[in-house]
This record gives sequence, structure tokens and C-alpha cells, in this order.
Amino acid sequence: MSKQVAVILSGCGVQDGSEIYETTLTLLRLDQLGLGYRCFAPDIEQHHVIDHRSNEVAEGETRNVLTESARLARGAISPLDELEADDFDAVILPGGFGVAKNLSDFALAGDAMQVIDELTEALSGFHEARKPIGLICISPVLVPRLLGPGIAVTVGSDPGVAGAISAMGGLHRSCGVEDIVLDFENRVVTTPAYMLATRISEAATGIFKLVDRIDELMDL
Amino acid sequence: MSKQVAVILSGCGVQDGSEIYETTLTLLRLDQLGLGYRCFAPDIEQHHVIDHRSNEVAEGETRNVLTESARLARGAISPLDELEADDFDAVILPGGFGVAKNLSDFALAGDAMQVIDELTEALSGFHEARKPIGLICISPVLVPRLLGPGIAVTVGSDPGVAGAISAMGGLHRSCGVEDIVLDFENRVVTTPAYMLATRISEAATGIFKLVDRIDELMDL
Repeated sequence: MSKQVAVILSGCGVQDGSEIYETTLTLLRLDQLGLGYRCFAPDIEQHHVIDHRSNEVAEGETRNVLTESARLARGAISPLDELEADDFDAVILPGGFGVAKNLSDFALAGDAMQVIDELTEALSGFHEARKPIGLICISPVLVPRLLGPGIAVTVGSDPGVAGAISAMGGLHRSCGVEDIVLDFENRVVTTPAYMLATRISEAATGIFKLVDRIDELMDL
Repeated sequence: MSKQVAVILSGCGVQDGSEIYETTLTLLRLDQLGLGYRCFAPDIEQHHVIDHRSNEVAEGETRNVLTESARLARGAISPLDELEADDFDAVILPGGFGVAKNLSDFALAGDAMQVIDELTEALSGFHEARKPIGLICISPVLVPRLLGPGIAVTVGSDPGVAGAISAMGGLHRSCGVEDIVLDFENRVVTTPAYMLATRISEAATGIFKLVDRIDELMDL
């Protein structure tokens, strides 16, 4: 039986859900390495719907995070409250504003943010079992609240987000778009992706390195 | 100035729009080869909205093809009626049911199908100029109506779709998921992708070959 990785989504689209390319590139690399995966998302309403052409809020429209995430998973998805760390060897969170609007309220509350309970519960099992945790793009901002203080992460070089991570007790390391930051002690791997990427191939390089490192850490 | 490729989308999600992984993998490979790209989609209502979790029609819901395609293009998209073949060196159509429901009515009408006028107009310029045309997954079913009879294409091995292609005057060639069919005379390249793929890495192999061949054909 191949190793299994849980991938946690937050919708479908960079402005109000999971970043589509980051998610696809994560799944591609997992499959290329022969790792199995399963996608999960919370069964909650999106914070809002953004028209990705105009970048404005689509007034009066509502969408469900799990239902929209199912587009990105080609239907193969489960509710986040069914994720059990015992069933998986690692977990990865792609980025996108859904992380800061649906999985948490970082986009509104900054360093006073809260993470949704079912994500905190799901991740605690991985962290306690010292299973590798990968976080992409804006997702590393969750780490201080989600896993605790003193864990080294990167969101690239954004001073505002880096400052918020520090204010919550995290450690932010600057990092290029094609590289990763590893907190070996805590088994946490992060990469900036579209916090910095101007081209999809740049995001791919960093994300492939992250998935490769997750793969290595599962054997350590 | 790098060569430029137009990518035509039909929504965002395999059941009612463009297949997300096929589109992302196409853009990844174009960028890895140093080719520029621009996404286009028709500014029309989707045929319907499918709940990708239940695979059922979301009754009463409507979405716009261009607006949803913008999710897949990270906002960088133009209306299909603005696509001029003179501005591009090649064109690629990813798959997904949007091709058979929004760009055409193949899903309903079979071999009596019609293609939307603005797609026919956009593609005719590429075909007349002998610029390479790539079609992925179900998109090759458009070729007889879109470009004319006698052009060799593949959708893998689906007997129903292959039969419809033949009935419309096309030539269907069976093909494995990790391979392509090239009609050199007509500069048309096709690959089965999710008509056959059971893993994203299989789709990637075929799509990367297709984009690589499009790249080569632009210099011939």
C-alpha cells in the first residue's frame, strides 16, 4: 500500500477559495511520486464569492466550500470533519484566499485571527504524531494558531503577513519562490508559491520541492 | 518576443466547464517552454451548473462561462470574440464537459451537433494560416465541424465518441493516454487525457507531449 497524503481545500479559485494551480501541481507531484492522496474541505458556506474577472464581490451569491472544492478534486472529496490523522502519512494545505477567508478569518482579523475548529482538530493529530505538514502560499500564516508558537515558516517576503506571523508567536523566514523552508523538528515544510510567483513554472518548482521533502520526511 | 499561444476555456470544472487539471498542465508546460499564453472564453451562460460533489444539476443556478473561466486563468482572460489568430502562433483547447455543453451541444445532439459561432470564427483563422491547433480530451470531437472533414484526431478509445467523429466526416485514431495523434498536414495535435486517464500523471504525460509538439510545429 502506497503512502497516503491528505490535501485540504478551501474552495475553487484564488480569490475566494483554493489556488487552482497550487492544488493541481501538488496533486501532480504526489501522483508522480507514487503517493496516494485524498482531498478534504469543510462543509461550510464561503465567506463570499468573488467574480474573478472583475475581482469584485458577487453580491447575493453564496457557494459551499466543500461543493466548490469538489470541482478541484474531480468529485473525489470528503468533508473535513471526516479526516483522521491515523489514516494518512502527511497533510498538505495549498494556498488561495480561501485559507484566509474560509479556513480562518486572517483576511479580516489579521493577527487576531481564528482558525475553524475542524481544521485545528484535524491538524493536531498530524502534529502530535510528528507526521509531515506542508503549507503553501498564504497557508503558513495559520501555523502559530494551528500548531503553536516557535515554528519556522515562510510566505516569501511579504512584510505584513510576516509581521502577523511574528505577532502570533511564529518564526518567519524569507524565502525565494522556487525554494522551501523546513522546520525539521516540527516536520513543517512551507513554500511561497503565488505569494511571490509571477509564472506558473516558478510556483511549480517550489511546490515540487515541498512535496519531495514531505515524501522524504515520511520515511524519517 | 516569445511565441504566443491562445488557450480557449469553457468554464471551471470537469462536469460543466473546462477540465481543471488539463488546463493547468497545459499552462504549466507552455510556461516551462518559455511560450507566452492568453486565455479566452465565450461570454455566454453555462448550459447548466453541476454540483461536482453529487454530480447532479444544481437547479436554479446559473453561471457565466467567461466569469467561471476567469477562476482558472487567475483573472487574466479575454472574451473569445476578441481572439484574433493574427496575434497568436497556436491555439489549444483543453477538455471537460464544457466543450460538449458550452462550446458546442455535442453532449445533447451527438453527431448532429453545432459549434458556437465565435469559436468557429476564431479557429478558422488559425486553420487557414496553418498555425498549430491542439485539442485535449473530448475537444477533438469538435474538429470535423470546426475545421472540416478528413482530419485525424483521437479521443482515446471511446467507441461512441469515435463513431460520432466518423459520422461527421472525421478520422478517429485510437491512442493511449500518454500519447498523441498528429495530423501533420493540418497541424492538428490531439491527446486523450481524461477520456482515458485514471491518474493525473498520465494526463500530464500526454498533455506535455502535445504542448511540446505544438512548440515544434510553430517552427515548421
